[in-house]
Amino acid sequence: MLTIEGRGPFVEGIRCRESDNIITVDGSILRIRDMAKFCFIVLRTGRSLIQCVLDHDGAQIEGLSEGRSLMEGDCIRVVGTKVDEPRATGGFEVHVAKLKVLSQADCLPPLNIAKPKLGASLEVILENRPIALRHPRERAIFKLQEGIIRAYRYYLQENGFTEIHSPKTTSAGAEGGANIFKLDYFGQPACLAQSPQIYKQMMVGVFSRVFEVAPVFRAEKHNTTRHLNEYISMDLEMGYIDSMYDVMDTEIGLLKYILEYLNTHFSYELQLLEVKLPVIDKVPVLKFREAKELIVKEYGRRLGGHGDLDPEEEVLLCDYATKHLGSEFIFITHFPSSRRPFYVMDDPEDPGYAFSFDLLFRGLEITTGGQRIHSYTQQVQKMKDMGLDPAEFAAYLSIHKHGMPPHGGLGLGLERLEMQLLGLNNVRHTSLFPRDVKRITP
Amino acid sequence: MLTIEGRGPFVEGIRCRESDNIITVDGSILRIRDMAKFCFIVLRTGRSLIQCVLDHDGAQIEGLSEGRSLMEGDCIRVVGTKVDEPRATGGFEVHVAKLKVLSQADCLPPLNIAKPKLGASLEVILENRPIALRHPRERAIFKLQEGIIRAYRYYLQENGFTEIHSPKTTSAGAEGGANIFKLDYFGQPACLAQSPQIYKQMMVGVFSRVFEVAPVFRAEKHNTTRHLNEYISMDLEMGYIDSMYDVMDTEIGLLKYILEYLNTHFSYELQLLEVKLPVIDKVPVLKFREAKELIVKEYGRRLGGHGDLDPEEEVLLCDYATKHLGSEFIFITHFPSSRRPFYVMDDPEDPGYAFSFDLLFRGLEITTGGQRIHSYTQQVQKMKDMGLDPAEFAAYLSIHKHGMPPHGGLGLGLERLEMQLLGLNNVRHTSLFPRDVKRITP
Repeated sequence: MLTIEGRGPFVEGIRCRESDNIITVDGSILRIRDMAKFCFIVLRTGRSLIQCVLDHDGAQIEGLSEGRSLMEGDCIRVVGTKVDEPRATGGFEVHVAKLKVLSQADCLPPLNIAKPKLGASLEVILENRPIALRHPRERAIFKLQEGIIRAYRYYLQENGFTEIHSPKTTSAGAEGGANIFKLDYFGQPACLAQSPQIYKQMMVGVFSRVFEVAPVFRAEKHNTTRHLNEYISMDLEMGYIDSMYDVMDTEIGLLKYILEYLNTHFSYELQLLEVKLPVIDKVPVLKFREAKELIVKEYGRRLGGHGDLDPEEEVLLCDYATKHLGSEFIFITHFPSSRRPFYVMDDPEDPGYAFSFDLLFRGLEITTGGQRIHSYTQQVQKMKDMGLDPAEFAAYLSIHKHGMPPHGGLGLGLERLEMQLLGLNNVRHTSLFPRDVKRITP
Repeated sequence: MLTIEGRGPFVEGIRCRESDNIITVDGSILRIRDMAKFCFIVLRTGRSLIQCVLDHDGAQIEGLSEGRSLMEGDCIRVVGTKVDEPRATGGFEVHVAKLKVLSQADCLPPLNIAKPKLGASLEVILENRPIALRHPRERAIFKLQEGIIRAYRYYLQENGFTEIHSPKTTSAGAEGGANIFKLDYFGQPACLAQSPQIYKQMMVGVFSRVFEVAPVFRAEKHNTTRHLNEYISMDLEMGYIDSMYDVMDTEIGLLKYILEYLNTHFSYELQLLEVKLPVIDKVPVLKFREAKELIVKEYGRRLGGHGDLDPEEEVLLCDYATKHLGSEFIFITHFPSSRRPFYVMDDPEDPGYAFSFDLLFRGLEITTGGQRIHSYTQQVQKMKDMGLDPAEFAAYLSIHKHGMPPHGGLGLGLERLEMQLLGLNNVRHTSLFPRDVKRITP
């Protein structure tokens, strides 16, 4: 009887088995350059590019249909000799002895993915997303994305956080009624989670420190370069804090670790994208009112009447921090309470302002966080003050009722963070299959 | 000006700083046992339980409201001397010098989480989910769940897989029309992803091997012990395979690694739950028809006319494998093509049967997988044969058109796998906030 044993592991880079100097490589043909007696084939493997030299007379080819030549997009397996070649990626090339065609492409792609740069508009890239992603620079964005998330997880695991998975179909929105995608759940009204907020707070009562990396859904009608209607939120929530500054400190430690991790493990992709990551040292902190005053003083802009920062103000604050405070990152704290959700703790020494913060980076808000109310009495009172009915939040309030540590947390938008780190001009570049007001395919 | 530097890391277990024998521990009071001159306090930290001894005369207590005693659920910080005590968890206890109440519970919980076993019905547990999860045994299930996912990621990363994040809001269901949650997407009809199937295939064209750990949504009306309407799917898809047996081999290597990882890093939780994990050696493989015949021969059951295994047949096949083949796991392959989705490759040597497999474990299907069609011509023909319009799948078919390697993959249901590993009788036990036909809260 047939049995399966799980013999793995394979080596990194897909079946790139080496013995002596004989190497087997599987990959897709990215480029063919014909040189009369031989040709160069650049193979695209799972992460890198490998140059192969194919002698028209010497090599044995199988699996090719009668009358057909090798074509870009064909998936092949080559066996050959690994030869040092400083000009090739990875410092070697493969002199092919045997080539087997595993799968033939039907025709050439609509985009020339063999060019060093794709040179297509965002619209064209997204219309041809599954193929555009095959370009080495396009896919490098998502290899780096894996690196960001991996570093995020490693750092938090090392610091006593537990990873959780909260539900995305839910009966009510954490942040209130607007911008919610509605759903028919077996005849009951339901919606998609805008944030894991209430669940991560519940889980602080269980594991003390938790984090989640998962999609969130926001039915915002903004069609801008920085909005997505579905994005990956990197959330964390930590108990036993002394103040929200503990949360901010964790975020900066985390970002430092992520940048170091990318520089160490993803230098290939960073070079390909010609990106030099920022350096984080000490991140300055301004209160909301100080920030507003600074904008008036330094940039002659009049204060807006509303209780938040607008996009232009975010740009100016980052400009100021970069030029005068030596940091591309800046924290803004103490936002007006009236504009923040019910779970945000107010500063008792500064009535009307909350223990909440935004982290701005290169002109854009990438994080909102803060300290939450842990006292049952205070949380019930806050809900009543805001016109909410505590009875509708019974499960949520049970955590306060039966004991919650002082706690706080934050949400970090993956795509926005990466867009800013790589210096891209549209958040759709950092979403694998972006969802916006007009786009829900592929 | 205030600046934030990210000074971390903290040590594991929340602020459990040690110098000489003086230790600071933050936690929630799980149990208090009064002994006249002193009391024992069991503190629940992020992962473990720490016994503290509080001398009624000697210790300094702050932060307690006038006239109130310490109560279960209070969150406290203790500073004290670490003293060896073989009978306590972790082999030590803390003789408290200072105790600070950080947050007072309002009242005792509706469930007694201080008992060694919760002893409540599933219904009561779920009605009080945020509090029930505070019980050490309940939360151990989700600490182990973190371990399963972590091991899954590590193994695949080591084997050249890239982690992806595909969209959950989408214009069409991967597996066809039924069992889909419908959504209003800015006036367009949309649905929630039942599976990342088409996206992971697209990404095999990009990274050769990919995996994803993310929620999937199935509007199945089954209200059974093994169905959830939202669950975490651990998906993988790998290119350059020789056959579906490469995928099956990867799965067994993966499961072996997961079990070893749990035994090494999560022995505390396994002991708490009194669980001994299964051993995987060689997993037997039966074809669908062989399996059906075996059930008739060994158990006298008549063949059902349908093209799939029913739950009772899954139980019988696992019973047989355990008793006669020395394995709690068994693969069933070559299901009838007619019951499998459009992307499944048929076995050319066995018309009407597909290169698809299920993995059964302790009476339950935990995986469906197989080899996919990589040829454009074949995929278009298969769609036509099934009455589907290829024009509606243009983005999906572009990957075949412009070259796809032979590939296959699988989906592993996290909650089902864990339910079976821990010997639990309902899949709701392994979902943090389960979603079923009747439950969408909390």
